[in-house]
Amino acid sequence: MKYYDEWRHVFKLDPNKEIDDDALALVCESGTDAVIVGGTDGVTLDRTLSLLARVRRFPVTCALEVSTLSAVTPGFDHYLIPAVMNSTDVKWFVGKHHEAVKVYGELIDWEEVLVEGYCVLNDKAKVAQKTTANTALTTEDVLAYARLADKMYRFPFFYLEYSGVLGSKALVEQVREVLTETKLIYGGGIKTAAEAAAFAAYADVVVVGNAIYEQLEEALKTVEAVRAQKA
Amino acid sequence: MKYYDEWRHVFKLDPNKEIDDDALALVCESGTDAVIVGGTDGVTLDRTLSLLARVRRFPVTCALEVSTLSAVTPGFDHYLIPAVMNSTDVKWFVGKHHEAVKVYGELIDWEEVLVEGYCVLNDKAKVAQKTTANTALTTEDVLAYARLADKMYRFPFFYLEYSGVLGSKALVEQVREVLTETKLIYGGGIKTAAEAAAFAAYADVVVVGNAIYEQLEEALKTVEAVRAQKA
Repeated sequence: MKYYDEWRHVFKLDPNKEIDDDALALVCESGTDAVIVGGTDGVTLDRTLSLLARVRRFPVTCALEVSTLSAVTPGFDHYLIPAVMNSTDVKWFVGKHHEAVKVYGELIDWEEVLVEGYCVLNDKAKVAQKTTANTALTTEDVLAYARLADKMYRFPFFYLEYSGVLGSKALVEQVREVLTETKLIYGGGIKTAAEAAAFAAYADVVVVGNAIYEQLEEALKTVEAVRAQKA
Repeated sequence: MKYYDEWRHVFKLDPNKEIDDDALALVCESGTDAVIVGGTDGVTLDRTLSLLARVRRFPVTCALEVSTLSAVTPGFDHYLIPAVMNSTDVKWFVGKHHEAVKVYGELIDWEEVLVEGYCVLNDKAKVAQKTTANTALTTEDVLAYARLADKMYRFPFFYLEYSGVLGSKALVEQVREVLTETKLIYGGGIKTAAEAAAFAAYADVVVVGNAIYEQLEEALKTVEAVRAQKA
């Protein structure tokens, strides 16, 4: 099992989407570094527990990306906590986290917690609307968020999130250049091995999500494509 | 010169207040661990530079607590960056910082930067009004902010700010108990050696500010009072 700072490829499973046992087995046995359970809508405790139980049959690292407090459960290897850096509402950067820690503070095993400084870039995505993110960002804006994540907040991850569409490879490259400790996650629109390889050239971690549900065979090829690519 | 994580007592000088050379010498030669230059109103580059030049005659650690971007200048040993955790406006937790890093990102020596997770508790204070802080906090609220500062944001400092009034020693004690890496700064209303000692029993760092201008002789006694007190 790789430590998070060596992850290169992860699959993201949405609790709000159906996946049959055969497909799930292929995902979990694909050689990916981790399976992340996370979504924006319809994330319930039942659906989260169901995916947890099903993924746990396989010896793959399993992380929960927390979006809904009521759907959090013990049993995952890691808990990824998004902090939306370009949200216009303090709730998505510190408010929700404060509520959670207020209730569960004493119970949290912080060794399992990994904060993701999110920079949400697709204004059409549900996550951008839900978090009222300011997606009208220049390259300098994004680089400044990256530096803050790295140096001021010392987050383990900075997450460039284009959810659903392919982002700018040039921007990913520039962001990677300013990060020193924080690892760069790229997510959004990757459906083919070639696309995965292209983003893996600059991002530390490439997320493949929707493609699992839309073209599984090609999605599975992204694992090897990312591995073959030097970051 | 002590490293910041060994600080116990600091004096805070307000660029917007007058202090004569004799008084300044007494402050700088008092044995305090650091002199911090910082205020809320009327902080200009001229006033900041003037204090910097005057404090620099003495071999005391000198830090700038950044409140106004236009008043930042090289020459200090440390730059303390407040991030107001209980502000209702994202500007005071990430927005201003983003602006600053966007402009100066490449020039910043991050080794000199120390972030303070502020928890503003006196609703009558200028800082509370300026940052639209939600000061109606329960003990659990404050403890949750402390945990976030320590574990999620990994800030070097958590700052309980009562500016102008004496705070709750019981709360300071409880906050100290939940912090593991982050150092606890207490500031507000300390005018006497006895008050300083009482708060130094729980806070890692005790800030003495207004008393410098109101009753200097007593203020100077806080240095030894804090030193004599085990944290």
